[in-house]
Amino acid sequence: MIGGKRKWFVPDGYLPSASSGDALSHEAACLLNVSDADANLRLTFYFEDRDPIGPVALTLAARRTWHVRLDDPASLDGIELPRDVPYAYTVESDVPVVLQHSRLDTSAGYTLFTTIAYGE
Amino acid sequence: MIGGKRKWFVPDGYLPSASSGDALSHEAACLLNVSDADANLRLTFYFEDRDPIGPVALTLAARRTWHVRLDDPASLDGIELPRDVPYAYTVESDVPVVLQHSRLDTSAGYTLFTTIAYGE
Amino acid sequence: MIGGKRKWFVPDGYLPSASSGDALSHEAACLLNVSDADANLRLTFYFEDRDPIGPVALTLAARRTWHVRLDDPASLDGIELPRDVPYAYTVESDVPVVLQHSRLDTSAGYTLFTTIAYGE
Amino acid sequence: MIGGKRKWFVPDGYLPSASSGDALSHEAACLLNVSDADANLRLTFYFEDRDPIGPVALTLAARRTWHVRLDDPASLDGIELPRDVPYAYTVESDVPVVLQHSRLDTSAGYTLFTTIAYGE
Repeated sequence: MIGGKRKWFVPDGYLPSASSGDALSHEAACLLNVSDADANLRLTFYFEDRDPIGPVALTLAARRTWHVRLDDPASLDGIELPRDVPYAYTVESDVPVVLQHSRLDTSAGYTLFTTIAYGE
Repeated sequence: MIGGKRKWFVPDGYLPSASSGDALSHEAACLLNVSDADANLRLTFYFEDRDPIGPVALTLAARRTWHVRLDDPASLDGIELPRDVPYAYTVESDVPVVLQHSRLDTSAGYTLFTTIAYGE
Repeated sequence: MIGGKRKWFVPDGYLPSASSGDALSHEAACLLNVSDADANLRLTFYFEDRDPIGPVALTLAARRTWHVRLDDPASLDGIELPRDVPYAYTVESDVPVVLQHSRLDTSAGYTLFTTIAYGE
Repeated sequence: MIGGKRKWFVPDGYLPSASSGDALSHEAACLLNVSDADANLRLTFYFEDRDPIGPVALTLAARRTWHVRLDDPASLDGIELPRDVPYAYTVESDVPVVLQHSRLDTSAGYTLFTTIAYGE
């Protein structure tokens, strides 16, 4: 089985600096590679008032998912995204993958959102 | 009336082990088959660090919806998905269907998310 | 300006019977008709264990939006959808429109979800 | 890299008048322009019972994102959208962009929703 697209776009990225309880506010770029080949990914981060950062090169193994924590520099080749700053990102891949973007915001409550990214 | 696609992808699956109040944290693969033929479905589950599980064979009757509880082995031909583990899944069907993925997380609050899956 | 599709599908419908505070749990089929012609809509509701209900005929005026309350029989030509029952629905239109499905669940908290429906 | 579409549609807009805590209820039209050309945008707002407002002309710089606050007249060329009123909107652009729509509702809790808009 194969399926997916090679370019994905997420306009609404935001990492709240505040958290409550034991649940850390964060976002995840949830990727799925159902193909039999590893996917070489390139992530680029866009901002409102400064030049883009990246690309960050990541590898998503064949027939695996990876919920990439966007608040974790160790997951992004050392890149630390600023908190409390609107951003956006794109993912390019050499094999078809699927991207779903999710946020957990516990800054003043406990709420999740998600959407399949825009792909082409 | 007909409509839908035969392959669907959901990258962000996660079943919290904790719940609060009377509402159990869970996810549902909400499927709709508007055609006049039963749909033979095959669900495959992907993980970050192990081989996929499946396919699980399910039947969705003609002109019916089914909100398949992903935390319920009885709905998945006996498969018990691990809790607190990132996963993803695909649904293949022999007739066009539509898939929407939803989560209720009550582990430290009460929050829903949903998205139409990626289909092709 | 024109834009949209003539067939839309929402697999995850659910009307919680419980509410808290002043906010009634409900769902809305949010429709947008940017064309210069009124849209003649037909809504059909699907269930897990019974035959579909409908079609319900509604008219969405040209260059208007309508957030159709799915818990309000007066908005659905007298149809009262059952609460606490999984359902799904489709919208057919004679001119292109766009459908976004949203839920407010206040049964044991206060949470919203939304997604653009699947269209074709 | 290029990508996106020139027409986007969001049927479910709503700005709650009430807020709780320090977090103001609001919506954002999150736009991403990955191209090397500035995007000239035109936003039009639709209602249930009155004529559309707009177009509002905005510019989104090349290789930038902009999370346009829909509750802020300063972001909308002076247009103040009514609160507690269902609305919808479209975005037209002369270069491909991507639109994701999000709401924070703190009127009686703390909840987010989001979806990639419908584009064509």
